[in-house]
Amino acid sequence: MPYVNIKITREGASTEQKAALISGITQLLVDVLGKNPATTVVVIDEVETDNWGIGGEPVSARRKRGL
Amino acid sequence: MPYVNIKITREGASTEQKAALISGITQLLVDVLGKNPATTVVVIDEVETDNWGIGGEPVSARRKRGL
Amino acid sequence: MPYVNIKITREGASTEQKAALISGITQLLVDVLGKNPATTVVVIDEVETDNWGIGGEPVSARRKRGL
Amino acid sequence: MPYVNIKITREGASTEQKAALISGITQLLVDVLGKNPATTVVVIDEVETDNWGIGGEPVSARRKRGL
Amino acid sequence: MPYVNIKITREGASTEQKAALISGITQLLVDVLGKNPATTVVVIDEVETDNWGIGGEPVSARRKRGL
Amino acid sequence: MPYVNIKITREGASTEQKAALISGITQLLVDVLGKNPATTVVVIDEVETDNWGIGGEPVSARRKRGL
Repeated sequence: MPYVNIKITREGASTEQKAALISGITQLLVDVLGKNPATTVVVIDEVETDNWGIGGEPVSARRKRGL
Repeated sequence: MPYVNIKITREGASTEQKAALISGITQLLVDVLGKNPATTVVVIDEVETDNWGIGGEPVSARRKRGL
Repeated sequence: MPYVNIKITREGASTEQKAALISGITQLLVDVLGKNPATTVVVIDEVETDNWGIGGEPVSARRKRGL
Repeated sequence: MPYVNIKITREGASTEQKAALISGITQLLVDVLGKNPATTVVVIDEVETDNWGIGGEPVSARRKRGL
Repeated sequence: MPYVNIKITREGASTEQKAALISGITQLLVDVLGKNPATTVVVIDEVETDNWGIGGEPVSARRKRGL
Repeated sequence: MPYVNIKITREGASTEQKAALISGITQLLVDVLGKNPATTVVVIDEVETDNWGIGGEPVSARRKRGL
């Protein structure tokens, strides 16, 4: 019954990588808390780099400087 | 003043269906809690089926198996 | 499989009122989108009035003025 | 270390405006709470006007009436 | 830089279990996506069973029936 | 009409500081995007340090080491 929301920048995560996040987090909730995987929901949000800020500036600006 | 966020998979909900969710939830908050509809906000997020997991796997994988 | 998050100020919603929100929203998702109620999750967050702002001020300040 | 999520309707916010939101909110958290900007995250979600409801109807319907 | 929010019912998760969720999810994001753990944020929300609904009813009501 | 959610660790933010966050962010949305303050909602979540992770460990563990 847990609900997990993962937010990452949209920078090319593949379908396989996203499936690995979903299975890994679901298994972690089974292992640590004994949760039922059948009703465990994981939602991944991929956010444009213009719309994600860290250190007071957008990730898109950081990427242009090679960060 | 309530804020409601609905997350569903992106599988073809129409403009009319989304309007029905918005009006239905707003009315429910009026009926149950006496909230002011003028400042009640409802935000619907439609999530790609690759990015929504249940039972440890993406919905896109389940759909391919006819689930 | 939908996930719904309702945020309201913590101002005395009863267990019965919260149960009515949960059943009402779940039924709405069945009626409008044909969703499966067994995996529909509704989470209600009750927020202190000091921590909820509208119109640029906390609800607690508005309540003191009778709003 | 704070995390801030801003949701606005998708109605043409520019890259510069979004950068101004990110820098302004990060600075506010430094000024008010002494938070470390290096680990302050700001995520902006732009939501389609069909998917944002206020007053019981979608913003897209309000815009058609000139509101 | 990822942000992860885990919502579970408040039913006695220990400090150690919550630490295990935090370390496990952070490591998963390193392993699967090569994310930097230093700026990976995980927030756990523990929700009262009256405020969590599934199958159209609160978890508190289900627990009374032994579910 | 914007909705802003701020998550910070629960470490003693005062009512005045939270009011300053609410007014500052609302004004920023007026200044940058011309938003209507009357329908701008800000919700502050204060999260226990056991429940907030960064760098793969809870903030509570970091605080014990003087970080």
